[in-house]
Amino acid sequence: MTAGYYAAVDWGTTSFRLWLVGEDGAVLAERRSAEGMTTAAKVGFHAVLDTHLAATDAPGHLPIIICGMAGARQGWREAGYLDTPAALTAIAGNAICVPDVDRDIRILPGLAQRDMRHPDVMRGEETQLLGAAGTLGTGRHLVCMPGTHSKWVRLNGDTVEGFSTFMTGELFDVVSRHSILSHALADGGVFAGNDPAFVEAVSESARNPALATNLLFSVRAGQLLHRLSATDAKARLSGTLIGIEIAGALATAGSIDGICLVASGPLGALYHAALQNQGLKVQHVDADDAVRAGLSAAACAIWPL
Amino acid sequence: MTAGYYAAVDWGTTSFRLWLVGEDGAVLAERRSAEGMTTAAKVGFHAVLDTHLAATDAPGHLPIIICGMAGARQGWREAGYLDTPAALTAIAGNAICVPDVDRDIRILPGLAQRDMRHPDVMRGEETQLLGAAGTLGTGRHLVCMPGTHSKWVRLNGDTVEGFSTFMTGELFDVVSRHSILSHALADGGVFAGNDPAFVEAVSESARNPALATNLLFSVRAGQLLHRLSATDAKARLSGTLIGIEIAGALATAGSIDGICLVASGPLGALYHAALQNQGLKVQHVDADDAVRAGLSAAACAIWPL
Repeated sequence: MTAGYYAAVDWGTTSFRLWLVGEDGAVLAERRSAEGMTTAAKVGFHAVLDTHLAATDAPGHLPIIICGMAGARQGWREAGYLDTPAALTAIAGNAICVPDVDRDIRILPGLAQRDMRHPDVMRGEETQLLGAAGTLGTGRHLVCMPGTHSKWVRLNGDTVEGFSTFMTGELFDVVSRHSILSHALADGGVFAGNDPAFVEAVSESARNPALATNLLFSVRAGQLLHRLSATDAKARLSGTLIGIEIAGALATAGSIDGICLVASGPLGALYHAALQNQGLKVQHVDADDAVRAGLSAAACAIWPL
Repeated sequence: MTAGYYAAVDWGTTSFRLWLVGEDGAVLAERRSAEGMTTAAKVGFHAVLDTHLAATDAPGHLPIIICGMAGARQGWREAGYLDTPAALTAIAGNAICVPDVDRDIRILPGLAQRDMRHPDVMRGEETQLLGAAGTLGTGRHLVCMPGTHSKWVRLNGDTVEGFSTFMTGELFDVVSRHSILSHALADGGVFAGNDPAFVEAVSESARNPALATNLLFSVRAGQLLHRLSATDAKARLSGTLIGIEIAGALATAGSIDGICLVASGPLGALYHAALQNQGLKVQHVDADDAVRAGLSAAACAIWPL
């Protein structure tokens, strides 16, 4: 049995994932928990990491590569940002070392777009991007990474030209829970990317993005006047927000050779359907695979065998 | 001293206003309180009304005209909706009587647009519209009534052809308080309609409405990368939401002869500035005057002297 080459950690705001990786690239062990930055900032990043490493029987000398919010100002150790335009190969080279620990622990930087009119930041998604880039052909690609703060990256070969964050997931959450729409959405069930309420909302919002905040209110009015079901109301809210996001991302994309969707699970399926409904051909890369591939690329660059 | 012709009540979700009006149209007394529908639904609508009438020494026979949320399903007595296209003159004729009370109390209906694709409702603003319509010339007017749920009405002479509600004020509130932007906005001060941060946000959002949910995130990124002040952050959030609202309203307006803004106070000044920045000539009517004029028009139609 191999003792492991490195451990890779994707440390988000609310989630922690660790993979123990062998010299042949095989995953020897995996850990998942809810000890994201928010929790770890209270109980200690080192303690959280050590607990999970111990559970995998990782040797004491094993180096650790980390991406995500552990590198934020309010994280373990600030890892700064690479400024756009940025070469993906520069990510590993700009990792910072966590000082005063008994092993080699590196945290990858985020990306910053310092444009005064369109300032933007990402932290964690740059590693997904590094992992996904290997599966893309040459040319200019638009890479969509949906989530709480959806990222759309304009990638030209190995270079991140720029990117745009859309608050789609967070708006869905705060509007669902805290606005007048909460009544219309209460107890709504699961919907799919081919449900008519979702499909129509994506189309309408993408066609008339200026009406997005009006379409949101029509969810409430639809409930009052047409007994719109809670599940359809959820689908319309989601479709409206995803529709304006797609329209906005395409409006700033310029000429592209392809669109890549980096996403997992139900959210990935929903975006895939929405993009296809807009007549867009999409290459779909699993986000979990992408982040592991990105961490692996960085680890191999930092600690070559 | 005249004993009063009628009392007029604007009963909103969170506010109550009453005017005692003489036969010559003069306001003899005025009452304002926070006993809107939310409070009155608990303590009793009749009790709230009686307390304020007693404080104005209103005679027992005085008739009462009411608009707003007192006529909602969860209000005092449901007053239903007039369907669009609707003549403003039909509002008074469709008032409902509150039963089992010792005086003549009427509640005005709201307006409903039952279009399956663009369902919409208003309750209270139809009375402002009735009051403002008297000051408008002939032809097609776009009437903007900003607020928690901003209403834009397509008015052709006396006829409401249709209208669109934008969730601008409520989105500002929930995003300010519950999203990641709350950090960037904390302790932000007052901003004005000519502040560059507001002006630029209105322009950018109106020009590229598809980017609205991206522009919201840039408030956070601007704080991280450019130390955007909390007051400028508030101005950008507000400008972005008002910009997309204006773009959306104009996109559905069709050919119009004029734009009328029905609004009071700082919000009215902000919208006036935003509309002027978009090169639009605006007739500004005070919202308090408009609702009193609308209630007066309805009272005179129901109880002619």
